[in-house]
Amino acid sequence: MVLKRIVETELKETVRVKIRFSEVDSMGVVWHGNYVHLFEDAREAFGIKYGIPYLDVYQNGYYTPIVSISCEYKSPLKYGDEALVEIRYFDTPAAKIVFKYKIYNALTGVLAATGETVQVFLSVADNCLSIGNPAFFEKWKQKTVMPV
Amino acid sequence: MVLKRIVETELKETVRVKIRFSEVDSMGVVWHGNYVHLFEDAREAFGIKYGIPYLDVYQNGYYTPIVSISCEYKSPLKYGDEALVEIRYFDTPAAKIVFKYKIYNALTGVLAATGETVQVFLSVADNCLSIGNPAFFEKWKQKTVMPV
Amino acid sequence: MVLKRIVETELKETVRVKIRFSEVDSMGVVWHGNYVHLFEDAREAFGIKYGIPYLDVYQNGYYTPIVSISCEYKSPLKYGDEALVEIRYFDTPAAKIVFKYKIYNALTGVLAATGETVQVFLSVADNCLSIGNPAFFEKWKQKTVMPV
Amino acid sequence: MVLKRIVETELKETVRVKIRFSEVDSMGVVWHGNYVHLFEDAREAFGIKYGIPYLDVYQNGYYTPIVSISCEYKSPLKYGDEALVEIRYFDTPAAKIVFKYKIYNALTGVLAATGETVQVFLSVADNCLSIGNPAFFEKWKQKTVMPV
Repeated sequence: MVLKRIVETELKETVRVKIRFSEVDSMGVVWHGNYVHLFEDAREAFGIKYGIPYLDVYQNGYYTPIVSISCEYKSPLKYGDEALVEIRYFDTPAAKIVFKYKIYNALTGVLAATGETVQVFLSVADNCLSIGNPAFFEKWKQKTVMPV
Repeated sequence: MVLKRIVETELKETVRVKIRFSEVDSMGVVWHGNYVHLFEDAREAFGIKYGIPYLDVYQNGYYTPIVSISCEYKSPLKYGDEALVEIRYFDTPAAKIVFKYKIYNALTGVLAATGETVQVFLSVADNCLSIGNPAFFEKWKQKTVMPV
Repeated sequence: MVLKRIVETELKETVRVKIRFSEVDSMGVVWHGNYVHLFEDAREAFGIKYGIPYLDVYQNGYYTPIVSISCEYKSPLKYGDEALVEIRYFDTPAAKIVFKYKIYNALTGVLAATGETVQVFLSVADNCLSIGNPAFFEKWKQKTVMPV
Repeated sequence: MVLKRIVETELKETVRVKIRFSEVDSMGVVWHGNYVHLFEDAREAFGIKYGIPYLDVYQNGYYTPIVSISCEYKSPLKYGDEALVEIRYFDTPAAKIVFKYKIYNALTGVLAATGETVQVFLSVADNCLSIGNPAFFEKWKQKTVMPV
């Protein structure tokens, strides 16, 4: 079996997110499960920046559910902090969307976490997994993605 | 204007819910916004007990969105505690579903909170608010509800 | 018993909050329990604007837990919407902090919800409820609050 | 460098968790970020079963923050479903707690997700990372853990 290569690209976006009081746990730091929201905020901003927002994908007939996620926690974030979330698009010939994330403490620049998500294409019409890239996505890639 | 009366009934249910670590904030107590989940768990159990679960309501063509909610906090709940949530159905001639809640610390019996929710009927088909009670609900009331 | 009067003031703040995908439920609208986050975001911004942020209150030796909350839902918010949350401070001689909220759809201007929260002062040192206003808060009121 | 081996053990627990309405997103399935709660519920039950609950760990002077998490989504869970979460303890000589998870649809037996968490020991007193296993944990391991 030949593994499909994942290649870093120049496509990236950065968002600044204030930590909410409700996101902090009894240890006084952001509860680990809440970093998922930071990834989501970054994906959202990426989609808008590069002309491929969630609602457009949906209009094109696809959901893009997450099929895998991972997060490595390096340094805690606290209430009052701001997170700087960097999202970068990684290209793959597979019908997948791969993002890698770096979350920094916006004030100190300290790395707080890294992570990755993989999404697939699911047809809204019949709920079927797309084996190849949908046409609209292939078009977007040809126009937008430039491997490093 | 004649206000539609809200009348207490005998219909009630009680659920026991363990407090999750992630529900506790940096003050070491359940974050106030998380009590909404306890209300939801109680409504769910009530629906099952009295033969009117959410999915049946949906099958009958209706959503029942919350139009108002209130909660009074009396005594904090902590991680490791269990909440005992009592839900009671209040009858009204209006096309509304009124529940009142009492949340206790299951171990100590201390009252932790009280609350109320009001729901209306929204047609799934056309997203329209139901002015009168839907037939399925009227039938349920005639069969089930016995004012105190 | 003489009820302590609650008086509207000029003190208000407005925040714009993007609706997150994860905040929307299977009816396609923001889940009612998530409005609590919008109130929290507005309180946060209010505290910063008027020099009384949460962390300063804590430094002064007090928690300000919510003792009651209510929300009336008028019109749904959807994914892709932005909420405009207006928070207004209401003055009371009681040792309480009362805020009222109006949430609008930022694009259409349609009122989405109204709400209210009441907070009390709890000493961090001994976990005791403050009967009168703490000195730092009384000072803040004299400097800042101007009844309409 | 010699990598510290991770070895499967016989120690496992299973919990059954009802899917909450609020956990389901606009695609009609459990939002991917909510699986973290299922892992947490399983860890909680594991701790109780094997005499090493979170609050005891804390009493022994340690927090056990998550330093890495991953989840692979296989098949969606819906509102009305129940999740069967299997948690299994993996032994390692490193000062870490490794759990692997399998989440099933309790009704159909279909695998919904797999995952892993790694926790470390942080001293409550000085917030320092424990390089070796704390004494209480070493004792627990000697008494409880039996490699397959």
